[in-house]
Amino acid sequence: MQTTFEIRTNGAGLYEFTRDVIRWVQEQRQNNGLLTLFVQHTSCSLLIQENADPEVQTDMQAFFERLVPDTNHPSMSYLTHTYEGPDDMPAHIKAALTPVSLSIPVMNGALALGTWQGIYLFEHRTRPHSRRVVAHLSP
Amino acid sequence: MQTTFEIRTNGAGLYEFTRDVIRWVQEQRQNNGLLTLFVQHTSCSLLIQENADPEVQTDMQAFFERLVPDTNHPSMSYLTHTYEGPDDMPAHIKAALTPVSLSIPVMNGALALGTWQGIYLFEHRTRPHSRRVVAHLSP
Amino acid sequence: MQTTFEIRTNGAGLYEFTRDVIRWVQEQRQNNGLLTLFVQHTSCSLLIQENADPEVQTDMQAFFERLVPDTNHPSMSYLTHTYEGPDDMPAHIKAALTPVSLSIPVMNGALALGTWQGIYLFEHRTRPHSRRVVAHLSP
Repeated sequence: MQTTFEIRTNGAGLYEFTRDVIRWVQEQRQNNGLLTLFVQHTSCSLLIQENADPEVQTDMQAFFERLVPDTNHPSMSYLTHTYEGPDDMPAHIKAALTPVSLSIPVMNGALALGTWQGIYLFEHRTRPHSRRVVAHLSP
Repeated sequence: MQTTFEIRTNGAGLYEFTRDVIRWVQEQRQNNGLLTLFVQHTSCSLLIQENADPEVQTDMQAFFERLVPDTNHPSMSYLTHTYEGPDDMPAHIKAALTPVSLSIPVMNGALALGTWQGIYLFEHRTRPHSRRVVAHLSP
Repeated sequence: MQTTFEIRTNGAGLYEFTRDVIRWVQEQRQNNGLLTLFVQHTSCSLLIQENADPEVQTDMQAFFERLVPDTNHPSMSYLTHTYEGPDDMPAHIKAALTPVSLSIPVMNGALALGTWQGIYLFEHRTRPHSRRVVAHLSP
């Protein structure tokens, strides 16, 4: 079973879609299996992180902004792929440092997420985008 | 086939559990397939790394400590999610930079690990924890 | 279905093998499924990144060289696992920051890669190597 989630983003940051994934998995009525998510882009990524305290998400975003600043920051002047703007190449780098695919077991009909684990689309571009995440449920 | 490995940790660092995984895979007597490991936490992660020289593990830990220091380090004063201590948010960040899930093919009844590859739980918290890793073996 | 891709590298950088993967998947004539790639080494990794502009690949390599310089750089003098040369331990660290395994859905007989996504072996060692990537196609 396969589907595609479409996630609209409005600037860099974490966009949770845990509920959409849980609902789709339940609809498949498969007792045990493996869910795989795959993002079809190279300037955003996937992340499983704590969804209890929203500060975790803003701190996460702040860390990656400092680790890989936009190319108008002097420390990033060595980057050459900049024709789509100062957030272009840094977005590719952030996407390389975080997952493009994630696999989560399904046990007794439910996703085996830990208590505080949420599933996020991690957007690295400044402008609004529509992002596609393919889901595959295998036996 | 599914199981859960429980790994007790006692401070930040790498905890190998390759043998437990190999033993469980052998017991399933499946000739070909795919093993997926998934960690049910957001402040530790998984890692496949060299298990020949223990210095690789201490160096790895040292690098991540420098890349993401505890929040009592002045460079990390921008982080706000700190109520569980100075290692709280840095642990989430380290978990975002390393895998939450790993997939390893099973060929001819054995895990297709390279000669020097070991499977580790990468603990990012200072206090002792009991960590759960779900394993799923698919066809 | 399983196979092994062998990729010869000649210094640090990104080596694309998207076409080899696409060809093998097509030959399996499986309508829907999940392709998983697993690299059997601890000093190189896998990466899905933009394959339109080659500058993305050289910029990516340049970023990782700055984030984890060789051990003859003063900032890396704390590393101890150096007997295979100044690129030894940094290669392990770069491999920890990027994927050892990747999973890509197969939809309607084709890999569900996005328009600009290419599959790369990310070599972190200076000397030439022959690298093995195991592929597994599951239902």
